[in-house]
Amino acid sequence: MSMKSGKKEGKNETDKTPKGISVKKNENFSEWYTEVVQKCELADLRNNLKGFVVFQPWSVLSMEKMYKITESALQKKGHKPYWFPTLIPEKNLKIESSHIKGFTPSVFWVTSHGNDEPIEEKLALRPTSETAFYQMFGIWIRSYKDLPFKAYQRANVFRYETEATRPFLRSREFYWIEAHCAHASEENAMKQVYEDMETTKEVLHDSFGLPFIFFERPAWDKFPGAHRTFAADVLNPDGRVIQQPSTHLLKQEFAKAFDVKFKDKDGKDKYVWITCYGPAISRIFASVIIVHGDDKGLRFPWAIAPLQVAIVPVVDDAKVLKKVEDIRKEIEKFASVEIDLSEKSAGEKFNYWEMKGVPIRIDIGLKDIGAKKLTVFRRDLDKKEVIPEKDLMKYLEKIKEESGKNLMKQADKLFEGRIKDVKSAGEMKKTIESGLIARCNFCSVEMDGAKCAEVIEKEIGATIRGTRLEKEKPTGKCAICSKPAKAVVYVARQY
Amino acid sequence: MSMKSGKKEGKNETDKTPKGISVKKNENFSEWYTEVVQKCELADLRNNLKGFVVFQPWSVLSMEKMYKITESALQKKGHKPYWFPTLIPEKNLKIESSHIKGFTPSVFWVTSHGNDEPIEEKLALRPTSETAFYQMFGIWIRSYKDLPFKAYQRANVFRYETEATRPFLRSREFYWIEAHCAHASEENAMKQVYEDMETTKEVLHDSFGLPFIFFERPAWDKFPGAHRTFAADVLNPDGRVIQQPSTHLLKQEFAKAFDVKFKDKDGKDKYVWITCYGPAISRIFASVIIVHGDDKGLRFPWAIAPLQVAIVPVVDDAKVLKKVEDIRKEIEKFASVEIDLSEKSAGEKFNYWEMKGVPIRIDIGLKDIGAKKLTVFRRDLDKKEVIPEKDLMKYLEKIKEESGKNLMKQADKLFEGRIKDVKSAGEMKKTIESGLIARCNFCSVEMDGAKCAEVIEKEIGATIRGTRLEKEKPTGKCAICSKPAKAVVYVARQY
Repeated sequence: MSMKSGKKEGKNETDKTPKGISVKKNENFSEWYTEVVQKCELADLRNNLKGFVVFQPWSVLSMEKMYKITESALQKKGHKPYWFPTLIPEKNLKIESSHIKGFTPSVFWVTSHGNDEPIEEKLALRPTSETAFYQMFGIWIRSYKDLPFKAYQRANVFRYETEATRPFLRSREFYWIEAHCAHASEENAMKQVYEDMETTKEVLHDSFGLPFIFFERPAWDKFPGAHRTFAADVLNPDGRVIQQPSTHLLKQEFAKAFDVKFKDKDGKDKYVWITCYGPAISRIFASVIIVHGDDKGLRFPWAIAPLQVAIVPVVDDAKVLKKVEDIRKEIEKFASVEIDLSEKSAGEKFNYWEMKGVPIRIDIGLKDIGAKKLTVFRRDLDKKEVIPEKDLMKYLEKIKEESGKNLMKQADKLFEGRIKDVKSAGEMKKTIESGLIARCNFCSVEMDGAKCAEVIEKEIGATIRGTRLEKEKPTGKCAICSKPAKAVVYVARQY
Repeated sequence: MSMKSGKKEGKNETDKTPKGISVKKNENFSEWYTEVVQKCELADLRNNLKGFVVFQPWSVLSMEKMYKITESALQKKGHKPYWFPTLIPEKNLKIESSHIKGFTPSVFWVTSHGNDEPIEEKLALRPTSETAFYQMFGIWIRSYKDLPFKAYQRANVFRYETEATRPFLRSREFYWIEAHCAHASEENAMKQVYEDMETTKEVLHDSFGLPFIFFERPAWDKFPGAHRTFAADVLNPDGRVIQQPSTHLLKQEFAKAFDVKFKDKDGKDKYVWITCYGPAISRIFASVIIVHGDDKGLRFPWAIAPLQVAIVPVVDDAKVLKKVEDIRKEIEKFASVEIDLSEKSAGEKFNYWEMKGVPIRIDIGLKDIGAKKLTVFRRDLDKKEVIPEKDLMKYLEKIKEESGKNLMKQADKLFEGRIKDVKSAGEMKKTIESGLIARCNFCSVEMDGAKCAEVIEKEIGATIRGTRLEKEKPTGKCAICSKPAKAVVYVARQY
């Protein structure tokens, strides 16, 4: 069996010297995103498997760094790494009823092996691993001395999505970290929730430069099996939000179902309180593209750049080629670096590396060598700087410190003036359509508020993101039903 | 649904202060291995999923370092990282007929989703990803300028094993790297095979301290779809071998099936030559346990130790507790370090960290503080050394260099005198039963030698590992059938 015809068509779609991004980010965000993913070679959708993508080196190199930073933050806070099986027996998933109800529609099932021989039992490709971790918690945890028990795994998870695939944002397999912790009391578990938020700030904001707000989700939008759900919404330039890491205080039903008990200091057997936290690396990468990217293409914070320095020899001259190699060797000790020896023109090379988002580009010509100077292009500020050659390493150390922070500051501005108080459905609609987040008094974030939430969803196409953690006090009536408000909520459109 | 009864039984099996390894490695190797895996908390088999294990922090931390070293070696040689989907459509697997024949018996199939709704097409949990990579090679590769195309991925793969699970050695899901390369000629592809062998030496031997021999496998033992198969056999102390990374020059059937063609310098369209290389990190970890471990337990080379330094305060004294914290802070800048503040006795702590294989343990008591000395236990030589406190960092730098090399040298001795020339089946049997590798003249490593290989397998329980790469010349008759020998082969028992 050959697949010739299909394949060769595909070939025409790529171009080894892409012409750069043709769509302006603010004019057609969706097209811009598609072009960046394709032209920067981040992910390829042309594999013949619906809903799945092939992640390419330019994204994988960055996501590996993102994994490292996130795992290191977790390990510093005492989380230990595990690798659990990718498959979860159906009987495990069924143990907690609200959990299985929430996840069944999106589960892929393994039912046979070899020549269609039936398997011992039906197995799920993990959509998430609560029911695998807690089964082992039941074995490992025995005493209050074992608590808190802080575990995590780096893993790929699977959900049978039916909407169109959007690389990094929505596909049937994605890459995340799931951290699962058992605690002796609800109070300790809530402290874990706050620690998870702190981790999110350290990693997403301080390392990746992504601004977000943490909300407690309303009752109708909780994780299946959760008592309380908290989630970070990252703001897109177009005013929509993307849900990023969420952390959950689970109902004790999980601990009871898996018999996760400990002998407390008072000698009594008690059920643990469980929290789980799920930063999805491949989805956070989408926010890196969206928040930092511009009309030229990608912009990477230094810490997670797939390549930190690109060197472009601007003429094909032996002296220049020797110099670029000398410079490369020097930089190599400090940063990842590559010389562009492709057949493109110097101008094409400039555009290419700007599109690819490399933080620093060094252009070297004969004049620079004579003057003992280097022409450096920094992508964080999109400008050229000329520095004495001897100061190169000092300069790079400065850029390492500064460039990520510059991107972060530019991103932080996204939130400035983006939240507007509204008093009615009409005001809310106008506010949201103008790319802002609406804040309003709201009847209730318990189940009795679900009806008003539905109105918002149907009439405005937006969702209630929840309440702030530093609870804000409502002072009037619900913007939708005019009943006395019990909460102040934020409303936005989401991806 | 609760699982109480099953769980509580499990609980009795672990003990938080294990008594150390009770079996001598040379007396009952198999029991020794089981005990080390369990007592050092490397992997847990008590999850309720047949054939799968939960990898625990003490192995995961080490395997993450092994991944990093291996990936870095590949990247330095120009391989780029990808993440391909875990699922492969049945139609892809079927494209190369010998490949599907070889792998079908061990494939897990995904056939449904949600509430038993059928899926669009039957999907395999990847047993290996040739048919995913080469489909994309057909899209990505167009010209000789794209060659060599060197890709790899870090991935978990799945095989429906029916034999008993042995953590790290055999389970239904394991962790590996698969590198796939396309070349312009068979000659270039063979150079890749040699480069893969060099990578294996750099990583397995020079970094992990594991001695091995690379063999070309006989015709009946090739990878499904391979033209030539080469594999590294690591020697166990009991004389058996474990197959570690293998590298394959594939038949061009793959390139033809997936239409992986390039326009050569001469303007002609040609099919590429493909090689693939598969170091299985979780399996190599088994060799780390087996080759370096001793009667006390694990011994880790510094570079891949889950923890490099353990500090034991030998008395519960404020002055000692302050000193251990000061020392920890100093070491932290250079190595991973942990203070043992558990309730165990000093003696129990010593045994515990020796069992866990930590390269360096520092024991601190009041006397040491007075003398401004430190008592250091090094696991590579199993001996105590006393050093001036002020020399600590210099000492650790030395240990970082030396300890891995010492383990490597000790391991290298395993091969000394382990190969014995034999001339008959009887001699071969005796040789192999005494824990040696037999070398002999052999009729043929093409398919016409398969019959003699079967004799060896049935009567001696051993397999032909293949021929050395620096071909050795046969000088007589086949040790089994007495026909003129065309090859010199090595015979051993394997895991």
